[in-house]
Amino acid sequence: MDTIFDVIARRRSVRAFRPEQVAEEQLQAILAAGRAAPSGGDNRTTHLIVVQQPAALAQLRDLVEREFAKMDVDEHTYKSIRNSVAASKRGGYEFFFRAPTLVVAANRKGYGNALADSACVLENMMLAATALGVGSCWINQLHWLDENAAVRAALCALGLEENETVTGGLALGYPKAADAFRPAEKDGNPVTFVR
Amino acid sequence: MDTIFDVIARRRSVRAFRPEQVAEEQLQAILAAGRAAPSGGDNRTTHLIVVQQPAALAQLRDLVEREFAKMDVDEHTYKSIRNSVAASKRGGYEFFFRAPTLVVAANRKGYGNALADSACVLENMMLAATALGVGSCWINQLHWLDENAAVRAALCALGLEENETVTGGLALGYPKAADAFRPAEKDGNPVTFVR
Repeated sequence: MDTIFDVIARRRSVRAFRPEQVAEEQLQAILAAGRAAPSGGDNRTTHLIVVQQPAALAQLRDLVEREFAKMDVDEHTYKSIRNSVAASKRGGYEFFFRAPTLVVAANRKGYGNALADSACVLENMMLAATALGVGSCWINQLHWLDENAAVRAALCALGLEENETVTGGLALGYPKAADAFRPAEKDGNPVTFVR
Repeated sequence: MDTIFDVIARRRSVRAFRPEQVAEEQLQAILAAGRAAPSGGDNRTTHLIVVQQPAALAQLRDLVEREFAKMDVDEHTYKSIRNSVAASKRGGYEFFFRAPTLVVAANRKGYGNALADSACVLENMMLAATALGVGSCWINQLHWLDENAAVRAALCALGLEENETVTGGLALGYPKAADAFRPAEKDGNPVTFVR
């Protein structure tokens, strides 16, 4: 198996999936990797809701499209939200790319480390998935819609607690593309040294 | 070298360090791992300030203790901040455990994914450090003090940009304890399945 450095280099956002479900043993290994992430004060309060039921996936897909389609945006709106709203108004918006597994990450409302802790969980899961040949992509739409009453009601019916806020999510599945895990040379994330 | 699953299992927060500096090649590998993390809209705007200069480290240590010692807290204050304030009022507060390297992570002010993106960068760095035998611990104190004028001025002198907010940080160094990377069995971070 690859070293962690190979895995980090090969992790890419995958946005086209084959329909077959992620093997159970792989899913469990990905979840265990996420649950082992560090957290502020060792709180470990990230809650992962693993949605695989086709009816629930279809309901979330339709609901997100409907709620985004109602939203008004302007040039001050974050560009990814603008894109989601525009795609939803056009119709046919697949916010988790028809992946067979959608993981919703949540954490305690009002907890200052909620986003950071859950991000560590999700990053561990994306790396573990990459190591196993499972494609992943961070899914932020349910986080953006966290205060939408219809979306919250649907998520609470799936296991979200009233005192939890959606912090992020992941699409998981086998990539359609044969070269989904090719390394990318990227710049950005600059470094300053004080020596 | 270990697989990513071994590395994730062995990553532990290290809070006691040997004084020698992290080898340059290892530091560069850890930074490269962090910079390869995913980010919202592929923005890659996490800025890592790597502080190794002894005078700068000592200045930050003293400043954080002084500013926390001025703070009033009550039972509603987040417990880790309460602990930092109490330790600072007592004196001798080592917020980065005298590690030879302190990494300050920052991101754009007002960017909704700032905390999540930087957390993915820092988690990659903690995993890479673990794989190389370098101890790490998330350091949140400069994030908590991000709006403190004296702390901001000190950080801006080290390279923080005016339009950046501190999102987190890391202590890095070789662990004092021989068993610093033993795996821990932990619960928490619960999972709900919808199938």
